[in-house]
Amino acid sequence: KELAEPTIKEAFGKCVQQGASRIIVSPYFLSPGRHWKQDIPSLAAEASKEHSNVAYIVTAPLGLHELMVDIMNDRIKYCLRHVAGDADECAVCAGTGKCHLYS
Amino acid sequence: KELAEPTIKEAFGKCVQQGASRIIVSPYFLSPGRHWKQDIPSLAAEASKEHSNVAYIVTAPLGLHELMVDIMNDRIKYCLRHVAGDADECAVCAGTGKCHLYS
Repeated sequence: KELAEPTIKEAFGKCVQQGASRIIVSPYFLSPGRHWKQDIPSLAAEASKEHSNVAYIVTAPLGLHELMVDIMNDRIKYCLRHVAGDADECAVCAGTGKCHLYS
Repeated sequence: KELAEPTIKEAFGKCVQQGASRIIVSPYFLSPGRHWKQDIPSLAAEASKEHSNVAYIVTAPLGLHELMVDIMNDRIKYCLRHVAGDADECAVCAGTGKCHLYS
C-alpha cells in the first residue's frame, strides 16, 4: 500500500471542519513526477468537491533550494562518522545492513 | 529513460582518474526506496569491480532534517506569492499550467 493516512480527502475535511477557507496541499517531493502532476491534483480535486466554498492550491514540489546543500552535507558527514564507528546507525539505515564501507 | 548521465560507472571512473581512493555515493532521495536499497548499491558494486583498490560508501537518503521545514516553508510561500500574482511562475511549474488557486 503506497498511501499513508490520513488520506487527502480526510485531511481536507479536517481542515474545513477546523474553519479553513483556503487549503494548501504541499506534495513532499524533491522534483516533479506523476504523483505531483496527476495523482495528487486529482485526489485534491475529488476532495474539494464536497467543500465548494473552499479554495485550494497544490504547490510545486520542493525543487532545488540552497539549504539542500547543507542537508546533503550533514547526511554525508553522518554516514562517514557511522562507518568510522563514531556514530550510531541512523533511523534510515537501521536494520538494512547497508551502511558500511565497501572495498 | 530514467537514468541521467554521467552513469554511476562513469562518475566512479572519473573520481578514480582524479586520484580518489574513497568514493562517496550519496543518493539524492528524501526517503529509502528500491533505488536506494537495490539499484544504486548494485550499480556501485558493479562500478567498483574495475577499481579494486578504491573503497566506497553508499550513504543513506536525506531523511528528515530540521532544515526541511525551512525549505517547505519557502516553497509554500513562493507558490502563494505566485498565485497572488506577486511572483513569476517558478522553474518547476513553468508550462504545466498547474499552479493556480482552485475553487
